[in-house]
Amino acid sequence: MFQINEDYLKLQGSYLFSTIAKKIQVFQEENPEKDLIRLGIGDVTRPLVPAIIEALHKAVDEMADAKTFHGYAPELGYEFLRSAMAKNDYTDRGCDISKDEIFISDGAKGDSGNIQEIFAKDNKIAVCDPVYPVYVDTNVMAGRTGTFNKETEMWSDVIYMPCTKENDFKPELPKETPDIIYLCFPNNPTGSTITKDELQVWVDYANKVGAVIIYDAAYEAYITRDNVPHTIYECKGARTCAIELRSFSKNAGFTGVRLGAAVIPKDIKRGEVTLHQLWARRHGTKYNGAPYIVQRAGEAVYSPQGKEQIKDQVGYYMKNAKVIYEGLKEAGYNVSGGVDAPYIWLETPKNMTSWQFFDYLLEKANVVGTPGSGFGPSGEGYFRLTAFGSYENTLAAIERIKNI
Amino acid sequence: MFQINEDYLKLQGSYLFSTIAKKIQVFQEENPEKDLIRLGIGDVTRPLVPAIIEALHKAVDEMADAKTFHGYAPELGYEFLRSAMAKNDYTDRGCDISKDEIFISDGAKGDSGNIQEIFAKDNKIAVCDPVYPVYVDTNVMAGRTGTFNKETEMWSDVIYMPCTKENDFKPELPKETPDIIYLCFPNNPTGSTITKDELQVWVDYANKVGAVIIYDAAYEAYITRDNVPHTIYECKGARTCAIELRSFSKNAGFTGVRLGAAVIPKDIKRGEVTLHQLWARRHGTKYNGAPYIVQRAGEAVYSPQGKEQIKDQVGYYMKNAKVIYEGLKEAGYNVSGGVDAPYIWLETPKNMTSWQFFDYLLEKANVVGTPGSGFGPSGEGYFRLTAFGSYENTLAAIERIKNI
Repeated sequence: MFQINEDYLKLQGSYLFSTIAKKIQVFQEENPEKDLIRLGIGDVTRPLVPAIIEALHKAVDEMADAKTFHGYAPELGYEFLRSAMAKNDYTDRGCDISKDEIFISDGAKGDSGNIQEIFAKDNKIAVCDPVYPVYVDTNVMAGRTGTFNKETEMWSDVIYMPCTKENDFKPELPKETPDIIYLCFPNNPTGSTITKDELQVWVDYANKVGAVIIYDAAYEAYITRDNVPHTIYECKGARTCAIELRSFSKNAGFTGVRLGAAVIPKDIKRGEVTLHQLWARRHGTKYNGAPYIVQRAGEAVYSPQGKEQIKDQVGYYMKNAKVIYEGLKEAGYNVSGGVDAPYIWLETPKNMTSWQFFDYLLEKANVVGTPGSGFGPSGEGYFRLTAFGSYENTLAAIERIKNI
Repeated sequence: MFQINEDYLKLQGSYLFSTIAKKIQVFQEENPEKDLIRLGIGDVTRPLVPAIIEALHKAVDEMADAKTFHGYAPELGYEFLRSAMAKNDYTDRGCDISKDEIFISDGAKGDSGNIQEIFAKDNKIAVCDPVYPVYVDTNVMAGRTGTFNKETEMWSDVIYMPCTKENDFKPELPKETPDIIYLCFPNNPTGSTITKDELQVWVDYANKVGAVIIYDAAYEAYITRDNVPHTIYECKGARTCAIELRSFSKNAGFTGVRLGAAVIPKDIKRGEVTLHQLWARRHGTKYNGAPYIVQRAGEAVYSPQGKEQIKDQVGYYMKNAKVIYEGLKEAGYNVSGGVDAPYIWLETPKNMTSWQFFDYLLEKANVVGTPGSGFGPSGEGYFRLTAFGSYENTLAAIERIKNI
């Protein structure tokens, strides 16, 4: 008689953004006349840029002709895309990553959820708190996190690294030694980031204790300051301890196109076994490649026109970030993030909990944001707004918030 | 110090098709003048049909305009595609499956590899032998299969159901009771299939012993005979025991486009927990939806024009199947499959092993096929050819084989 994976039942509630979607649905059914502005889930709103559209049409036409038709993709991904990434994201930045260390995927959410599979079940993870829920939830599903304490809202076998205004939203090295460390800079959800020197401390620490860093670089395109690293491989020694996850969702608007990559240097080993070879085996066995037309779209992101156009698009969102950041400051909120990231992180006023503030903003301003507590216990009392709306909606949302 | 998932190291050799690809590469480097014909891996060669190309272009144009741009897809998949599948694949066949029981994915390989995650680790799987390697390998990676016996080439904790000429390539109910039963009809690799009455026996058995059937229907479009079921939900009681996996790769040529679906009726339960809810949670946590443009392409598969055009395309491949089947018979081979499936399964001549015959065919006829033993011990002494080549190449390959 089949039995279910009991670890799934340990998951708390449903996935954060599903809960928000359901709350919005109820609100809209009860208030059909209200015009909601969504600055909650990190979904982009700008159309794909012309260079990408052109590449997509061209690839579609290739699929219409037997001579240029493409079936199953190569397991790692097409060479044209891996080469473009290796050059633009790594070699041109002076980082030593080869195209054979890049595994093309259908996005960073899947990679960040699946990567834990190649590690032993009793390995201990460390996460920033607050944190993107996928890192923890997928480890819960794998039975790696122990028991949940409803009082503290923490898992017994997870090492939490609080990121609050007290430490400027930067994690400190944990007291207990982890095996796997999840880091994301520029950070989701806090919008904060760390300098290259600060990241070097983490790389040195991981190499010292034999930990691996899963480095989520999804928001790299939003970096504006010089001393903030665009990839963890800018740090010395990262090739022996760091996996990097790349996304096309936020730099090029691919949330509905689906493309990402995991970078696994061949130097990360345990005994004779490399993590590269384990991930290659997983890719070959459980995955069948990103669509050809999507990989061509990804290639266009690195063309001269593509680069120019997506730079403008990122600029558009960063103008929104400034509107939110400055507008909230004016309105008397304590705000952070928004300088090297599309996320603005604010303290909820009047001792409201994050979910109280979510309801308050939904009802009073008809603006949707994301409750900080949904990202972990140290997110309680905070709230996330994203810069991915239209400029007009962003202006309107901030006006509404100011006028509550 | 991080440790790796040791279960990965139990995997035998590399994934079958990777091994074949490497052998071909070596052969081509050594024989650059030889013109290989590939009837090995089940990859299609015909271009996408016009109705699908049109849908792709239209969807790409939508992504170019903020008013029609699509970001993150709904978690289950777009309603337009789930509705089309529910109607065409189920309701129109008199099967009771609702659109909310269909989970859109990026293909059946991923689904068939990931589905085991929602079951307990100590559940016992039963597989046909020979079998699509992904079912077993992904259970190996999950630590569910015990130890490998190099003599028998069998895992200690897997129930094998031999499918050979002795039983007309149809599995018999296993003596030991399994928890999870993988079935694929029309079958990969043997090309055989079973009737609706025969499948009903499996559904009744699964309901009786409390097992779940993972039913891989990837080759449904190739069915020509009336008494062969197009879906397991044609059988009474399947709603309480069967998950069905659907693919767009072989009916519509989407091997490089990537689209599939898992159908999980809400009636499969253990206690109060439904498998539907567990898979929904997995989908929401580890997956971010198939691309919008690809889901629109999937919708076009069900349009009147799309249906007509892909029917012709399937007919094209089935003509190839006939060429292979009859040609090999003429040449004196014992052949099966090829009537309701794009695969032809032949006995290797002169007591050659499957891999000996692979090398023999590669060297003597420059034709690539797939060794039966790569699909399991009972595949030893058999060999698979696929009908997915061009008609001209298929004719040429059979001529070459005849002339060895």
